Order: sequence, then structure tokens, then C-alpha cells
Amino acid sequence: MKDKFYNYIVELQNKITSALEKIDGKASFHEDEWKRTEGGGGKTRVIQNGDVFEKGGVNISAVHGHLPKSMQNYFKVEDVDFFACGLSLVIHPKNPFVPTVHANWRYFEMYPSTPLRMTPSTSLTKSSPGASNEKSKKIIDQWFGGGQDLTPYYLFDEDAKHFHQVCKTACDKHDASFYQKYKKQCDDYFWNHHRNEARGVGGLFFDYLKANDERPIEDWYSFVTEIGDSFLDAYIPIVEKRKDMKFTQAQRDWQEIRRGRYVEFNLVHDKGTLFGLKTNGRIESILMSLPPHVQWRYDHNPDPNSPEEELIKVLQNPKDWTKA
Amino acid sequence: MKDKFYNYIVELQNKITSALEKIDGKASFHEDEWKRTEGGGGKTRVIQNGDVFEKGGVNISAVHGHLPKSMQNYFKVEDVDFFACGLSLVIHPKNPFVPTVHANWRYFEMYPSTPLRMTPSTSLTKSSPGASNEKSKKIIDQWFGGGQDLTPYYLFDEDAKHFHQVCKTACDKHDASFYQKYKKQCDDYFWNHHRNEARGVGGLFFDYLKANDERPIEDWYSFVTEIGDSFLDAYIPIVEKRKDMKFTQAQRDWQEIRRGRYVEFNLVHDKGTLFGLKTNGRIESILMSLPPHVQWRYDHNPDPNSPEEELIKVLQNPKDWTKA
Repeated sequence: MKDKFYNYIVELQNKITSALEKIDGKASFHEDEWKRTEGGGGKTRVIQNGDVFEKGGVNISAVHGHLPKSMQNYFKVEDVDFFACGLSLVIHPKNPFVPTVHANWRYFEMYPSTPLRMTPSTSLTKSSPGASNEKSKKIIDQWFGGGQDLTPYYLFDEDAKHFHQVCKTACDKHDASFYQKYKKQCDDYFWNHHRNEARGVGGLFFDYLKANDERPIEDWYSFVTEIGDSFLDAYIPIVEKRKDMKFTQAQRDWQEIRRGRYVEFNLVHDKGTLFGLKTNGRIESILMSLPPHVQWRYDHNPDPNSPEEELIKVLQNPKDWTKA
Repeated sequence: MKDKFYNYIVELQNKITSALEKIDGKASFHEDEWKRTEGGGGKTRVIQNGDVFEKGGVNISAVHGHLPKSMQNYFKVEDVDFFACGLSLVIHPKNPFVPTVHANWRYFEMYPSTPLRMTPSTSLTKSSPGASNEKSKKIIDQWFGGGQDLTPYYLFDEDAKHFHQVCKTACDKHDASFYQKYKKQCDDYFWNHHRNEARGVGGLFFDYLKANDERPIEDWYSFVTEIGDSFLDAYIPIVEKRKDMKFTQAQRDWQEIRRGRYVEFNLVHDKGTLFGLKTNGRIESILMSLPPHVQWRYDHNPDPNSPEEELIKVLQNPKDWTKA
């Protein structure tokens, strides 16, 4: 399963970066390959200063080894070995009418702890992301997680509806209850507690998708890759529709102020970010999610009945976009 | 003691905001008075878009009541009542050659817990910041804390030396060991762990200054107010010297990129900020510390042997400025 999913995210990274480069027309992704001292590594691809995309990253990683103490506490497990791989992306467009998007799909395996091995560190290759001696290990736990969500600066109902409808269609192929469940988990997770508002208009968020009596792990693979495959359909039509709209400096300022809330969420509340920062992850790959230009103004409040205020009202009361 | 120190910070807020307005020449501080539902409140004074100061806040607060659960865990105490007051300031100048400065001086008291009282909430007045019925309460613990530190974007050795020399002179009046001790605590506290560098060139940081056999609480009052009184001497001459220096867009960009590190420290590591965000503090007063314009670029590294790289080298290896 780990090779199968790793191969999937390798292909998906290629597919997504090609599609984004095509729509940008000017900038292309720069790739940095990195290694993790304790095992594994990743490929970070970043686009900057494009015509459409001001800054964005589409990263894959596959790491393995002894589960660090901090992660043991987090997962409430004893001494174990692990393998984790995933694709993580955040795209910050230039035009304030094009929403920021985030997505992540990941897979995790745990094994009984083995004594410290003195093997040479393995390289990250397409077909064999983990250390070869992990292939024969007994898997004691395994699960998928991830999701995708949209953060607009100006709200176009049709864009939010489109994004959510694509999410729902993909979910419905697997279970009629999934969309409502994972949509709600997304609204709950991306809640900026100290601001009492959502980070954006949501989408899907799921975690700990484990094999059970009804669903073997292959079914979860099929569900998660269904969502991964839906990403470009969910996002690209919105970019196409909004990328050439004219905007004012005031609208750009509003985008930069709202990006401040994005930073606040990611640095104060996002488990993935804090986790990476506190477990010696590759800082530049983790923080590629932060927007290029950001503003903080003291006690900034939009004018009553303005489009800016309208956005905030929706963020304070998440809507059911597929019923609206 | 609490009335005495509160009166001191009221006067100090006036003194500091007047001095900063005078040097700015254009912008003035706007005051917001706020109340805390559970007891007490504060006066937030913010300056924005000045000729010299792009954004800055000089805030005082005096809060009291039942110590919230999260603070009980933090201080490792049981059910108690508390009083806390302090002055907190962060100033972000426009010119990248003028350093950002932060300072804070605070006082804390704890009392045995009283049953929930149904008294009307008391107003914040100059002479009586706490609820009157706390005056007669037995103090079970009391301490001072605070400090001041400098964050330059371009390093002028003479500025760092001046700032530290003023700190040292103020410390030396009280104890020959204080400067080294509190300078080191400052370097340790304002360490941006995930970047492996200091937030700035430091200054002083102290906490839990409690009465002991050598020093009654009055001596700590006298020490902390000595530092508070030294603030303008430490900072203003640097502003005067640098505020009219010409700068390029590239230097301004560097300032905004470094401000990103300031945001990272405050949102990821700063105990005061996280504390406020998680205990229902007044968000706009807490986050006034965030800079007005900020940039994040992927994997940005200054040119070898540039002034920008020189700054980073010093931030990675804090210096003893009074001996340099």
C-alpha cells in the first residue's frame, strides 16, 4: 500500500504542477529535493511571482524511521517505527478575486520498534520510498488522512458552490454520508478560534481513515485518491473565471489583511505546521504555506454592508453550500 | 504595591507616547479603553502610518478576578484569585535602518480563592485599578517581570552597544550580576527555535522577581521602574540617528522579510501572545505587536558577505555588546 500511494502522489504532483504552470503562463515550479537525516525526504516544488500565482507550493514527502518522542505523545503510542508519505499544497494567487487553496493527502503506517540499525540512509526513489527492510515488517496500524479547502478574499457564491459540489460528487461515489461528515470536520478544523471565524469557506477534512469490517484499507485508498483526482476540477475553473478580473489597491489591501488571518491560523492553530516546526521538519517546506505579502492593521473592520463585511459574516457562520 | 505600580505604568504610558509622538511629528496615538468581562480592563494606544513609526502600540492593562483554569495550569497553582497589571509596547518604524523595539513591565498578585461574588464589575480608574474588596485580601504570592529588547533589520554595532549599555547602567545600580543574568535570559527567551536564530540583538528579560531575604518586594519595584525609566534613553537616540537615512526598495523588502520572523516568533513561541489568545484576552491589543507589512519568500537567503547576511550571523550567535 505504501508504494502504491507514494507512486500515486508522485504522479499527482506532476499533474497538479503542470496544470498550474499552464494556467499561469509565466512562472514555473522550482524543485528542491531534500533528505531527512533520520530517514526519507521529499520534493518541494514552489512557484513565485507568476502572472496568476504570486506564491505556491506543491510538496511531496516520504519519511520513515523511529517515531520521535513528540509524535509518540501526539499519537499516544509507545516506542514504534513509522512510515508516512503525503502531498501538501497551498496556492496564493495574485488577484484578490481568486481564492487561496490548500489540499493535503497522506498515508501513515506503524510497525513494532526495531533496535537502532546501522544501515546507510536510503535514498528517495520513485518505486521505493521506504527503507527496504521495512517491506517485510508487520504493520500494527495504518490510515489515510487529508482534505482540500478554499479561502476566498471576496465571496462569489457560485465559486463556493462549485468547489463544494465537486467535493460532494467525489464523496458520494463512496458513501452518501461522507460529504456532510467531512465537510463539518473541515469547518471545525479550520476554525480560527481567537478570531471566532473560519479560515475560509471550507471543503473536506478527514483523518484516521482505517480499515474496518465494512471497508478494507484498499477502499480508503480508493476514496482518498478520488478526492485527490477531484482537486483540479474543484479549483481550476474558479481560477479561470476570476484571474483576469480588474481589482483596486483597496481590494488588494483587503486580500493582504485577510492573508494575515491565514498566517495566524497556520502558526497558532494548525497541527500540521506546529508539528513540523517542533519535530525538526524542513522549515522552508513547511512554511511555504505562508503568503508572500501580508498586512496587519490595528482593529481593522470593513465598512457595513460592503463585500468585505459579507465575507466575514459567512466565515462566522459556515454555510451548507450544496444546499444553498 | 499594586496601586503604586499601576500609577507608575499610567505615567510611563503618557511619557512614552508623548516622546514617540514628538519624534514622529505627524501621527499621534489613538486610545481605545476596553473592559474585561471578568474584571478590569486596559488602555490600548496605537500609532499608525506616521512619518517615523509605521505601526506601534503602547498598552496598559490591569485585570483581576478568579484565575482562569488555563492560567492555573500554567502557574501550577490551585484555585486562586489574582491581580495583574503591566505596560506592553511594540514599535515598528518605517525606515529599515531603525530597529523595532519591544518592552514590557508587569506585576502579579495572587490571593486565596473567594466564592463567586455577585458584585458589579468595577471600572478601571487611575487610583484604584482592582476591585476594592481585594485591598483587604491576603497576598499569597506577588512578583514582577518584564524586559526590553531590540530587533534591527540592519546592524549598527554602535546602536546595539548603546541599547545594551543603557540596560547595563540601569541594572548595575541594583546589582552587579543583574545585567549578565537578565541579558542571557533575554537571548534565551527570544530564540526563534525553528529558525535557530535570535529574534533580535536582545536586551533584558526577567520574571518571577519575588521578595526574598536580601530583597523586599519594594526593591524589585525600584529595579523594574529603573528599567522602565531607562527605556526612552535606550531607544530614542537610535531612532534619532537612523530615521532620516535613505533606503532602497530592496532594503525595505529585507525589513519586511525579517518582520516575517518577528511574526513567527510571536505566534509560535511567545508565551505572552499565546497566553492572551488562549485565555480570551482582547485580541486587537495582543496582536498590535504584529508588523504592518510583512513578506514571506520561499527559501530566501541574503547574498554572501552582504549587510543582510552579517545581521543573520550575529542573530545566530548572540554577542556580549557591553564588552565588544
